Amino acid sequence: MKIIVVGASGDIGRVVCEELGSRHDIIRAGRTQGDVLVNMSDRTSVEKMYAEVGDVDAVISTAGDVHFGPLEDFTSDTFMIGLNGKVMGQVNLVLAGMARISEGGSFTLTSGVLDRDPIRMGAGAAAANGALGGFVTGAAIEMPRGQRINVVSPGLLEVSAPRYGQWFPGHEPVSSKRVGLAYAKSVEGAITGQVIVVE
Amino acid sequence: MKIIVVGASGDIGRVVCEELGSRHDIIRAGRTQGDVLVNMSDRTSVEKMYAEVGDVDAVISTAGDVHFGPLEDFTSDTFMIGLNGKVMGQVNLVLAGMARISEGGSFTLTSGVLDRDPIRMGAGAAAANGALGGFVTGAAIEMPRGQRINVVSPGLLEVSAPRYGQWFPGHEPVSSKRVGLAYAKSVEGAITGQVIVVE
Repeated sequence: MKIIVVGASGDIGRVVCEELGSRHDIIRAGRTQGDVLVNMSDRTSVEKMYAEVGDVDAVISTAGDVHFGPLEDFTSDTFMIGLNGKVMGQVNLVLAGMARISEGGSFTLTSGVLDRDPIRMGAGAAAANGALGGFVTGAAIEMPRGQRINVVSPGLLEVSAPRYGQWFPGHEPVSSKRVGLAYAKSVEGAITGQVIVVE
Repeated sequence: MKIIVVGASGDIGRVVCEELGSRHDIIRAGRTQGDVLVNMSDRTSVEKMYAEVGDVDAVISTAGDVHFGPLEDFTSDTFMIGLNGKVMGQVNLVLAGMARISEGGSFTLTSGVLDRDPIRMGAGAAAANGALGGFVTGAAIEMPRGQRINVVSPGLLEVSAPRYGQWFPGHEPVSSKRVGLAYAKSVEGAITGQVIVVE
């Protein structure tokens, strides 16, 4: 398969490329680096990415900005960072991509653990993650031409724990191998409309 | 208790006022009608509402715009209507209200069935509903002064079925009585961080 991975240079993106790269043709996409540049919050930029890349069988997103901060300090603007970035950005990849990817192709988005196992300062991320779960549930029944859509919801990755672990007290980090398998299940398997939990 | 009900003139808002009105002092709020006017998408308008109303023990929201349409027809703008309206609007009531409502007070938001039991044209609503579920999970652990937060997720109401039932094939409408009880559970009970499902 030919697969676009948006956010390929991040912790999860690298895991995905490692898991799927030996079996598939990976196109790395990112805001500032990669085979193709894309700002997924901007639908025009997303359209341009698809036009540049041509025929594709699967799209994986491991990208999306969210603001972390104490609940009482959130403004509308900081709260919207997650809804605009992590939610609308990933949804843009789907809305602009449905007409372009192959019959039976798939979209795999990324949410995270915080809407089921919250941490302090994570309310914006929790909302974004919940939105993505709701979106794939709703979108799966309307996907055209046998296309599928899922979202992977990983816990804190072992590789990310040295930087972020202090904000996740008691969370058991998940291995890169298990996170990679979740993306393989979505892309190479047949399920759709699922939140694929890795914990 | 003194309770603000935002969206009091809608189908769910009327149910809430009927259930709680005999036991509590209800202040009806709405965009175009009510005891106090508020545009909850605008944080300044929300702050003004709280200033006008004064001390309050509970805030209930049954309001929030969402766009319905075929998945393939969604643009970023139409998709954002739900994230800006139903999600950010209700979140604004919480962010602006935490410092104002009483110790032990509560916020009760409203989502809906479509993130667990989807219908055609409902992907925007499904995302908004999921976001609200994630938000209350994340926010509940950071609420100040013993405050609580929940979201009621009702199925299609019997009173709304004549207008909207054709888009919900096979969905069993829920009675106003059972929907009202869910809000009573959130406001008068002690739970927090919950999605209260009515179906």
